[in-house]
Amino acid sequence: MVADKIAVAVLGATGAVGVRFVQLLSRHPLFRIAALTASDRSEGKCYAEAAHWVVEGEMPAEVREMVLLPTDPEAVRRFAPEVRAVFSALPNESAAQAEPAFARAGLLVFSNASYHRMMPDVPLVIPEVNPDHLDLLGHQRRARDWSGGIICNTNCTVSGPAMVLRPIYDAFGVRRVFCASLQAISGAGYPGVPALDITDNVLPFIKNEEEKLEAEARKLLGRLEDGTIREADFSLSAHCHRVPVIDGHVVAMSVETERPVAPEEAAHLMRTFCRPEVAGLPTAPEHPIIVREEVDRPQPRRDRLSGGPVGGMSVVVGRVRREPLFGERGLKLVTLAHNTIRGAAGGSLLNAELAWRRGILAV
Amino acid sequence: MVADKIAVAVLGATGAVGVRFVQLLSRHPLFRIAALTASDRSEGKCYAEAAHWVVEGEMPAEVREMVLLPTDPEAVRRFAPEVRAVFSALPNESAAQAEPAFARAGLLVFSNASYHRMMPDVPLVIPEVNPDHLDLLGHQRRARDWSGGIICNTNCTVSGPAMVLRPIYDAFGVRRVFCASLQAISGAGYPGVPALDITDNVLPFIKNEEEKLEAEARKLLGRLEDGTIREADFSLSAHCHRVPVIDGHVVAMSVETERPVAPEEAAHLMRTFCRPEVAGLPTAPEHPIIVREEVDRPQPRRDRLSGGPVGGMSVVVGRVRREPLFGERGLKLVTLAHNTIRGAAGGSLLNAELAWRRGILAV
Amino acid sequence: MVADKIAVAVLGATGAVGVRFVQLLSRHPLFRIAALTASDRSEGKCYAEAAHWVVEGEMPAEVREMVLLPTDPEAVRRFAPEVRAVFSALPNESAAQAEPAFARAGLLVFSNASYHRMMPDVPLVIPEVNPDHLDLLGHQRRARDWSGGIICNTNCTVSGPAMVLRPIYDAFGVRRVFCASLQAISGAGYPGVPALDITDNVLPFIKNEEEKLEAEARKLLGRLEDGTIREADFSLSAHCHRVPVIDGHVVAMSVETERPVAPEEAAHLMRTFCRPEVAGLPTAPEHPIIVREEVDRPQPRRDRLSGGPVGGMSVVVGRVRREPLFGERGLKLVTLAHNTIRGAAGGSLLNAELAWRRGILAV
Amino acid sequence: MVADKIAVAVLGATGAVGVRFVQLLSRHPLFRIAALTASDRSEGKCYAEAAHWVVEGEMPAEVREMVLLPTDPEAVRRFAPEVRAVFSALPNESAAQAEPAFARAGLLVFSNASYHRMMPDVPLVIPEVNPDHLDLLGHQRRARDWSGGIICNTNCTVSGPAMVLRPIYDAFGVRRVFCASLQAISGAGYPGVPALDITDNVLPFIKNEEEKLEAEARKLLGRLEDGTIREADFSLSAHCHRVPVIDGHVVAMSVETERPVAPEEAAHLMRTFCRPEVAGLPTAPEHPIIVREEVDRPQPRRDRLSGGPVGGMSVVVGRVRREPLFGERGLKLVTLAHNTIRGAAGGSLLNAELAWRRGILAV
Repeated sequence: MVADKIAVAVLGATGAVGVRFVQLLSRHPLFRIAALTASDRSEGKCYAEAAHWVVEGEMPAEVREMVLLPTDPEAVRRFAPEVRAVFSALPNESAAQAEPAFARAGLLVFSNASYHRMMPDVPLVIPEVNPDHLDLLGHQRRARDWSGGIICNTNCTVSGPAMVLRPIYDAFGVRRVFCASLQAISGAGYPGVPALDITDNVLPFIKNEEEKLEAEARKLLGRLEDGTIREADFSLSAHCHRVPVIDGHVVAMSVETERPVAPEEAAHLMRTFCRPEVAGLPTAPEHPIIVREEVDRPQPRRDRLSGGPVGGMSVVVGRVRREPLFGERGLKLVTLAHNTIRGAAGGSLLNAELAWRRGILAV
Repeated sequence: MVADKIAVAVLGATGAVGVRFVQLLSRHPLFRIAALTASDRSEGKCYAEAAHWVVEGEMPAEVREMVLLPTDPEAVRRFAPEVRAVFSALPNESAAQAEPAFARAGLLVFSNASYHRMMPDVPLVIPEVNPDHLDLLGHQRRARDWSGGIICNTNCTVSGPAMVLRPIYDAFGVRRVFCASLQAISGAGYPGVPALDITDNVLPFIKNEEEKLEAEARKLLGRLEDGTIREADFSLSAHCHRVPVIDGHVVAMSVETERPVAPEEAAHLMRTFCRPEVAGLPTAPEHPIIVREEVDRPQPRRDRLSGGPVGGMSVVVGRVRREPLFGERGLKLVTLAHNTIRGAAGGSLLNAELAWRRGILAV
Repeated sequence: MVADKIAVAVLGATGAVGVRFVQLLSRHPLFRIAALTASDRSEGKCYAEAAHWVVEGEMPAEVREMVLLPTDPEAVRRFAPEVRAVFSALPNESAAQAEPAFARAGLLVFSNASYHRMMPDVPLVIPEVNPDHLDLLGHQRRARDWSGGIICNTNCTVSGPAMVLRPIYDAFGVRRVFCASLQAISGAGYPGVPALDITDNVLPFIKNEEEKLEAEARKLLGRLEDGTIREADFSLSAHCHRVPVIDGHVVAMSVETERPVAPEEAAHLMRTFCRPEVAGLPTAPEHPIIVREEVDRPQPRRDRLSGGPVGGMSVVVGRVRREPLFGERGLKLVTLAHNTIRGAAGGSLLNAELAWRRGILAV
Repeated sequence: MVADKIAVAVLGATGAVGVRFVQLLSRHPLFRIAALTASDRSEGKCYAEAAHWVVEGEMPAEVREMVLLPTDPEAVRRFAPEVRAVFSALPNESAAQAEPAFARAGLLVFSNASYHRMMPDVPLVIPEVNPDHLDLLGHQRRARDWSGGIICNTNCTVSGPAMVLRPIYDAFGVRRVFCASLQAISGAGYPGVPALDITDNVLPFIKNEEEKLEAEARKLLGRLEDGTIREADFSLSAHCHRVPVIDGHVVAMSVETERPVAPEEAAHLMRTFCRPEVAGLPTAPEHPIIVREEVDRPQPRRDRLSGGPVGGMSVVVGRVRREPLFGERGLKLVTLAHNTIRGAAGGSLLNAELAWRRGILAV
């Protein structure tokens, strides 16, 4: 029954990630959209008029007429006092101010912005990778004297590599990781990449992406000890490229482990990887990692909608083989993750579901 | 004057590389096309009717009416006894038989096929990288009792990395190289990649490509000693991908050198890299390597036609920086080479020009 | 219960339309796949090995191991005697022989091939457009002395225009129709259009397409009288183009009616167009024609999966306005239909459901 | 010698059309760039820093360091008093004010903006179509009391159809024209069309485009009488679409002539169409219209750079055939014109060359 669902708001609901949040929340069993906010430009317009609905399917009827509020906790509270959590698709500049304001006002902020990700007291979480990092929230609340809090998801590009590294790191340790990404255009938001720049072309640079990939991977795989994340002690280096693909980030990886590893063993660990903490959550895929046997998979167009009730929540892996440059400690493989689902809105949503299961978030 | 030009034939002239040969030879100052061959299916047709003219510009008027011969030295000799050299755009299956037949018949074969590339007595040459390997030809002739011979160019993907590694290898030594390629669809020939496979997609596998990349790079950078190539002693590992780009292969590289290297120094060496043996040849670019300063270059559509009178003969490099995973011996950069010009027909043509300068090829 | 479903076979199951048939039939409430056939090349292989699964989602588990039979009624009968109908995704050359053989053997053939479409005794049917043409089947059976029969769906490009013309023709009459199509690459099958031909390009010619469009539109909108189709008496002229789009054919139309027409009235008729004969069939969309109000719709990527339980069964129309060149008898609009669903496999499937409802097809 | 060239400025030099002007002017035999202007945002920056160089090849060395001036006649005069003409790549909003200001200041403005195109005293000129309309300039100068003046080129989409209609109109008269366009993304400028909107998609709407197409075609083919353009008396109706193509607008046309026409005759007239007034001008193509015989041409990627010393100045026509809906007075064909060369910067440049030949423009 709708009255029993947890009321949530989407901040920055009109952009590429915002519409994905709205799409995923529209038939969600735990949450219901009670408010939508937008930038000044769109404030006061109805959602159907202002949103760039760049995702599949039609805009849900129930949000079409919702009036866009300013991105301000007072406005949201006044309009929908029952809101308990917000999903933030804000650009970094706005997130810096707005997200703490909502947290201060007692709301849990599930953020897709990068601004707070690397702050020491902010949990950066992929539920299957580091569910216990959610406990940082207590420290954050005490330190900042907030009754709400901020929980971040990751950069869209790191979601595939981090998921894949989790079972490998746990079983064999990881020293060094080379990554080369082939990233979809939706990763740059809307309007984002001009067609004149990317048609029949590759852009071999994405601002700050290579830095984020390394920093976030180390935090995600780190250990929470005494209220602090000890970053995982591997190095990661990335070459990031934009390619003419709508959705789905491919990342080729060469991994040097601490201990010898057989590719078949690694493939088995990935294939059977799962987390009891996450299993059965509404948005969780049955298999967080799908390992394909065909020589030419994963492919973005064909595999990006794999996994989970909404599709796009599994990381798809292929070509698991020996990395000869690292000898018996070397693994070579290619990963695919849907950048606006697993790597953005779907990831935040799963974070909120995890918080709900842990009792941090309730009606 | 035409009479003074060296008469040549193009073998397999109707496919993607074949038409590029015809395009580049059509206004060449040293060579003139005296014969064209094709597979049985097209034999006897006129060139305009049978060729897949998938390159820029119009088919040159002088070849439109040329009748396609069978790919057989006797047929070529009978039709054009003055032919001294052939450019082979044959598929591997045909090259295995046909190229030795032409060599035995006294013709120099400049081959774009991979079949003979790794044979110990066959020169695999990029003129700026290893011009002296051409001397293998003498050994080949003696060993096989041929009056002609086979000279191979490289796989289209290796041309960028090998060019870039030359000055780095000579100055600092090279231990390990990670490569990730983003390859254009023209690399698969015509009809090649179905649009249904590559539109809005990436294919993370290209058959045999990763193997060729390593093997050819080691041979290209190897040393000719006593009639034998001693392969360069580095390891190279590649992740190869096909992307929706018409022409131009991007290869991201992480290089571990033997000795410490400053990225600025490496950039300087690449920028000033040149070979007196090659300078001034008709198809040679002034700068074999163009190093760009912009953060987001090279890009295939914008940079692939760089260098040389015909365009597309320079390797374009960008983002030369430190590879942190290899510390002070680490270099990170991205390369672009036109796969059907520098990496195929243009490369073979430059090999022939080098042979001409060395006196191996004359009217 | 599976035992109660009608057993069917798919002929030519490995190509672009064949896999779409398999996808749509895999969870069908009335039909179940009992046999799959392929060309000689694939015969004897298992489906997973031989099929080009170029549609969304995974290949259904239950067909992966099915062994491909030769396209021959005896082979199908021997393997699965319970088969009552076959869906034909055969190329024309094979359809010419094979489809009559199956019909002679007592099976109903729902064909996607063009070979029999224009034969006077073969029903060419879009259920919402001309359901009564199915009655031609009786004449066909008598004339050819078949216990089975052939029922054709239309060319993929005509499905949009024909659907749209139905209510307009009935209300206002139609004299002349100008069409310009922008057709997706999947319309050419697999491998179909080479990426080298269509990337950053338009092909302004599709063989026989303009002819089919006119002929089929006239037959579809014709009247069945005394066992003969009297073709509708309008003229239609088309300009056909291939564009770099995966799925979804756009057709811009300028229609001259017999009687004055107001665009709003035409839009209303299209929006409310429905057929009781078809309503409620498993694959039928609630609205055969969806009329959109936005100025820039329909768009293939965003609208092609509209309508019906499987998606892609509605024709989406936009920009309904006055065609000034025809004055008060002029309509101008743009249509979109999914070419491999409504325009191919989905259309045939709906024909079979209609046949089932009419009692022609039973367990 | 440079000193003898006519000094010109480019207004709005940093955008998609602006860079094309700079590219075409950089090696021009009559003109030399003496000043470049930009919007406030870029004013004061050097050109290399501010320009979006989205055209082929490198930015010419001589403009890289030029400082961008405000778009103001005083600023241009102060910086380069020798400037005689300006090429305007301004957006409409700026053109409305700026272009008259430059004309008032005594400069000839060759404008690519649409703002003044349909004004009765402003020549809208394609040199091969209506060179005599340039005489309107005298009326404009008298009416507005300007010593300079404004001469417009056409909308990029109309350039193909107008060129093709000229010989047909003159020989057979024209009553009605149906057009369907498939327009390239560069027609929308830079950044222009988001890749998220056009990848794997068609946009069936371009704002104001259909209206411009009709209005400008009628003015272009009109007659200048007593200082007034009498518009040509045909009707034209267009369906405009954006497709995923970089450059080159395709327009399919169905033409109803006044008098009977044989397609072969029309093809001959187009093929031999030329204007002595234009022949030999530096940017003029030898054949304003190239008629191709292949069934599947013109294609944007393969034909857009046809004609003229710079390429892209010819209109390429194919599939000239009977339009059955118009009977013996019907023609059907498809045209291609490079939208940023013939349809924009190249068109304006040719207008300026025509003005020079007529003595209106001098050093």
